[in-house]
Amino acid sequence: MEFLVRQENNLPQLPTDEAAQIKSAERTYAQELRDRGILKRLWRIPGTRTAVGWYEVEDATELHDVLSNLPTFPWQSITVEALATHPQEQVLAGSNPSKAAKE
Amino acid sequence: MEFLVRQENNLPQLPTDEAAQIKSAERTYAQELRDRGILKRLWRIPGTRTAVGWYEVEDATELHDVLSNLPTFPWQSITVEALATHPQEQVLAGSNPSKAAKE
Amino acid sequence: MEFLVRQENNLPQLPTDEAAQIKSAERTYAQELRDRGILKRLWRIPGTRTAVGWYEVEDATELHDVLSNLPTFPWQSITVEALATHPQEQVLAGSNPSKAAKE
Amino acid sequence: MEFLVRQENNLPQLPTDEAAQIKSAERTYAQELRDRGILKRLWRIPGTRTAVGWYEVEDATELHDVLSNLPTFPWQSITVEALATHPQEQVLAGSNPSKAAKE
Amino acid sequence: MEFLVRQENNLPQLPTDEAAQIKSAERTYAQELRDRGILKRLWRIPGTRTAVGWYEVEDATELHDVLSNLPTFPWQSITVEALATHPQEQVLAGSNPSKAAKE
Amino acid sequence: MEFLVRQENNLPQLPTDEAAQIKSAERTYAQELRDRGILKRLWRIPGTRTAVGWYEVEDATELHDVLSNLPTFPWQSITVEALATHPQEQVLAGSNPSKAAKE
Amino acid sequence: MEFLVRQENNLPQLPTDEAAQIKSAERTYAQELRDRGILKRLWRIPGTRTAVGWYEVEDATELHDVLSNLPTFPWQSITVEALATHPQEQVLAGSNPSKAAKE
Amino acid sequence: MEFLVRQENNLPQLPTDEAAQIKSAERTYAQELRDRGILKRLWRIPGTRTAVGWYEVEDATELHDVLSNLPTFPWQSITVEALATHPQEQVLAGSNPSKAAKE
Amino acid sequence: MEFLVRQENNLPQLPTDEAAQIKSAERTYAQELRDRGILKRLWRIPGTRTAVGWYEVEDATELHDVLSNLPTFPWQSITVEALATHPQEQVLAGSNPSKAAKE
Amino acid sequence: MEFLVRQENNLPQLPTDEAAQIKSAERTYAQELRDRGILKRLWRIPGTRTAVGWYEVEDATELHDVLSNLPTFPWQSITVEALATHPQEQVLAGSNPSKAAKE
Repeated sequence: MEFLVRQENNLPQLPTDEAAQIKSAERTYAQELRDRGILKRLWRIPGTRTAVGWYEVEDATELHDVLSNLPTFPWQSITVEALATHPQEQVLAGSNPSKAAKE
Repeated sequence: MEFLVRQENNLPQLPTDEAAQIKSAERTYAQELRDRGILKRLWRIPGTRTAVGWYEVEDATELHDVLSNLPTFPWQSITVEALATHPQEQVLAGSNPSKAAKE
Repeated sequence: MEFLVRQENNLPQLPTDEAAQIKSAERTYAQELRDRGILKRLWRIPGTRTAVGWYEVEDATELHDVLSNLPTFPWQSITVEALATHPQEQVLAGSNPSKAAKE
Repeated sequence: MEFLVRQENNLPQLPTDEAAQIKSAERTYAQELRDRGILKRLWRIPGTRTAVGWYEVEDATELHDVLSNLPTFPWQSITVEALATHPQEQVLAGSNPSKAAKE
Repeated sequence: MEFLVRQENNLPQLPTDEAAQIKSAERTYAQELRDRGILKRLWRIPGTRTAVGWYEVEDATELHDVLSNLPTFPWQSITVEALATHPQEQVLAGSNPSKAAKE
Repeated sequence: MEFLVRQENNLPQLPTDEAAQIKSAERTYAQELRDRGILKRLWRIPGTRTAVGWYEVEDATELHDVLSNLPTFPWQSITVEALATHPQEQVLAGSNPSKAAKE
Repeated sequence: MEFLVRQENNLPQLPTDEAAQIKSAERTYAQELRDRGILKRLWRIPGTRTAVGWYEVEDATELHDVLSNLPTFPWQSITVEALATHPQEQVLAGSNPSKAAKE
Repeated sequence: MEFLVRQENNLPQLPTDEAAQIKSAERTYAQELRDRGILKRLWRIPGTRTAVGWYEVEDATELHDVLSNLPTFPWQSITVEALATHPQEQVLAGSNPSKAAKE
Repeated sequence: MEFLVRQENNLPQLPTDEAAQIKSAERTYAQELRDRGILKRLWRIPGTRTAVGWYEVEDATELHDVLSNLPTFPWQSITVEALATHPQEQVLAGSNPSKAAKE
Repeated sequence: MEFLVRQENNLPQLPTDEAAQIKSAERTYAQELRDRGILKRLWRIPGTRTAVGWYEVEDATELHDVLSNLPTFPWQSITVEALATHPQEQVLAGSNPSKAAKE
């Protein structure tokens, strides 16, 4: 299931070593999420420390697991938005879109 | 997966027959959702025509199918909130809560 | 009477011992609320430290007693929403729904 | 249990007869609520068609019954706020305030 | 003139002695406001440190005097709402409601 | 007592005669409020049909009487804000500012 | 340049023929936008008639051209959010991320 | 004095002739405002019928005159924001920036 | 040109001497603004440390100069609203109101 | 591409030397942005430490580079708004406005 996730990073000014360590861990973890097909795309809201991510996970419980393990999680203010597949995507994917749902 | 759904009903004043027919269809459909284990609980916000429902479905796509087939859907203003299982519920259910997620 | 309670936990970084003690007390207290039939269900808003709970108490005064005794109460930002029984629940429970209330 | 109820009246311009009938029914009903001890006090927000009322009812379900039977209910936009008894009121009433609740 | 006053108490964690002294002064002052007929009723918003009060004073200037002398005023975030007498209250009080004002 | 009143005028397009009559009545009434010392000052929010007025009346009940008799009242969306006298104004007026109120 | 576009569809109830024609034109146009590489992904907000789209265009002027030509544009309420490329995407794409921008 | 003006155009669907006449008058008036040095720059918020304009006028009263004479004024929802000259602009213009104002 | 200015004072608890010095400077400066005809009127929002002021200055640049020189400026959170002269004020002042502006 | 950028400066009280150094670097950088044709205009919101700027850059990624290199960036709270060229500007510039976009 897909989610749009808005992550506002409020990391305070930390000692250089600690900050570098957290950023490095963050990069490694983000790469791992990409390798597992969980993090599909990440954008930056210009002028801010906020990122918007497109995630695909099993459900909201897995999403919380994934986000709460971010090395910067203690300093993140996060909001998530559940996404339904749009009928157009179903058509493109070659499957029959749900007859039931109203476009 | 569980959702909290807020349904504000803006049904206009319709001819008596039409209104009765829509309400009857709505009750039948709600009963069907309960029988299928999708609608777990429904509350009324006092003083309003807004209901809050606790739903359990496969994912957001099934939720949209379910909601867009409500007989009153054309007059509903709906917002949904994705819910993760709380570690406490996992303990109660006898399973091991996720080690990964921060409580 | 039923309430929907949104509990945003702003617990600061405490010494490990103190944090463990508070969390343990919180778990014990939550279990006690469940045993007394007060806390019916608890969910996690994914990506956050916010929980949503469905409570059943005598009235708003008992609800305040219950919430203000949470070990984490000094760090919680809480909002509550009073819930009326929906006519559909009354039907399911075998009782006659109120004739007076408009569905 | 006590509630603070905000009632925004959006009654459209109706034929004189119909409007007079609705207003008369509204006054009669409000008087009945006072006689039953349900409507404790009513205020007007100056410059508006909004009233704020202090109600005492059994619970949110009775409150919804009471409000949904207002003759002007179809044109009201209503919000309610659940109220707990303040420890100071308990002292004044001669009873022992709850030991459990934090002031 | 009547006011609805919302008082959000942000009193920080103070030394036990100081906190006890402030709370005691607050109780004494509140009792004095009741004896003078200024504080008519006080409620607690459940789950919060916010109180809602119904005050009757000469005007907004006296209200500010009254509130700014609360022992906890430096830690309060307060909003006030001016209330007009509702025609229904005037009827109940045996006086003729204003002919001029539109109900 | 003084109030700041924000009056958003939503007068629809009426027949020329009716519109002229309403506007003329509005001007006459505003002049009367000035003569009675009630309307102290009126401003226009640029680019809008909203006016901001500084009123001085006995209390909120008189303010509601005054505003609800505006010829355009049925089409106005109004909000009011109660104002306390600032200590500086009291000094200027030659009276002793309240000793009690905190500046 | 990438944009996140939120499209709330307020299409009124139209005659069946007209509605079918608009929906068909909408599908054709959406397919054209995909073929041109402009519309990268479309999601449905569950329970609503709102879609969220990920677009890639030359700039905001081209985005306005693209959106204002939607057959349903007259009934859409649209908000757009400009997106900067996140340094992580630049790494993945094999290019050197900007040295200048702070992550 | 400079203003930032946000103009949301809610022009309904009018007969073709009437719409063309209004648009033509709008263009002529906008050109006149440019010639008089009042309208400095106009932008379109992508995906919307909202324009943002940079105006330079004598004061807010002249701004209201200018905006209320827009042929589309009856269908515009407008908000304005007063702008002070930034010290940097004063430096660029070769004049001495105000000594008094804090940058 | 006239402005409505909302000044929320967040002055922290300072040493007695320093606080007294700032308050004294503030009073002197406010008196100077009155003598210069800039500060026309000041009100207190009851229950708060917020003041609302009616200012008359040359333009927004002079207003910023005036406000940024308040001794308490570093602790103020300020919002300003530009005001156009209302046609009624122009009539009262004996001048012909603008023919151009729509009332 | 053009952007409207709102920059709220929350620079804390720093040692005099450090503050002077940051301000000097800020001025130098702003001048550089002007020389490069990126910063077209800067305004001050009166009574605040907020500036509004009109920028022209390649795209949102370059805008983020430009803003995140501001010497005061760590203390800025920034929001940006993407701007499309208005058809009127295209006419003025002598080019044919887009046939496709609806005015």
